[in-house]
Amino acid sequence: MSSEPPVTPNIQNLITKNAQHVKNLTQQERDLPIPPAKKYAIVTCMDARIHPSKAFGITLGDAHIIRNAGASGVDALRSLVISQQLLGTEEVFIVKHTDCGMLKFDNSHLRNLVKERLNTDAAKDIDFLFYPDLEQSVRDDVAYLKGTGLLPEEVVISGWVYEVETGKCVRIV
Amino acid sequence: MSSEPPVTPNIQNLITKNAQHVKNLTQQERDLPIPPAKKYAIVTCMDARIHPSKAFGITLGDAHIIRNAGASGVDALRSLVISQQLLGTEEVFIVKHTDCGMLKFDNSHLRNLVKERLNTDAAKDIDFLFYPDLEQSVRDDVAYLKGTGLLPEEVVISGWVYEVETGKCVRIV
Repeated sequence: MSSEPPVTPNIQNLITKNAQHVKNLTQQERDLPIPPAKKYAIVTCMDARIHPSKAFGITLGDAHIIRNAGASGVDALRSLVISQQLLGTEEVFIVKHTDCGMLKFDNSHLRNLVKERLNTDAAKDIDFLFYPDLEQSVRDDVAYLKGTGLLPEEVVISGWVYEVETGKCVRIV
Repeated sequence: MSSEPPVTPNIQNLITKNAQHVKNLTQQERDLPIPPAKKYAIVTCMDARIHPSKAFGITLGDAHIIRNAGASGVDALRSLVISQQLLGTEEVFIVKHTDCGMLKFDNSHLRNLVKERLNTDAAKDIDFLFYPDLEQSVRDDVAYLKGTGLLPEEVVISGWVYEVETGKCVRIV
């Protein structure tokens, strides 16, 4: 009687690729300290088409990378306070992206799906943080983070849009 | 009167590296669809020492990657419901890691820091989701996600620990 789920193809992929990763990881990489060397955090989307280290030029050990549905600054607040207070982060990037699923749906649509498919009201009080306007959402999230009082005023917070169709990252604010 | 912050060294780094990324991105990568090809999501920590695509063998376009302080399944629930309901995710990995900052502090410590440094009580109701035991936290988060009723029972949820000192990913549940 094991509580472990079966070894799926995706689990087998992780095991195989991770074994190669262990061989590739350098001693310098193994010895990296906890605090990010470049003292910044990037908040971006969970979207499968975004590769933060390549797209934003992040070297291992340099920055915290926070990812959630829609690159929400609201959702990221807990992590950012920890990043700033405990690990010395001085700069935050919010990077949303074109063709994001968060632009295409709304709370009532998703709550109804959950109700119909899973027969539960457990989603009715969840704000899924959809937004109808990409650039405005970037501005709103930057303003939100500046307004919380939970990040020092001297923390630089910039807002960007990543174009999944081109790979280009464009500054909004 | 611009509201844009100055171009910091980290911003300049992003601009320079991103210009190279635009040149490197293949047409196939530009054309990737929204739904992850391999229908899975990985929840891991924001920690600067974790490179998910290398450590867990994720090809661009294959999986949602959610990252927050501590690889919290509680914090990731909103994103996971979106990933599963709207984008077809059938499998979830929770991957926490050794030497995580979330093992080293607690709510009262961080709330006191915020109060002292920023002179605000705004953190007093935030649960920062610290945990004292790494493997137990993996088990707890997997159990939490299974118990929400917000992910179908057939979604496979496994729990892992990534060893930052070796690069090895070890299955817990």
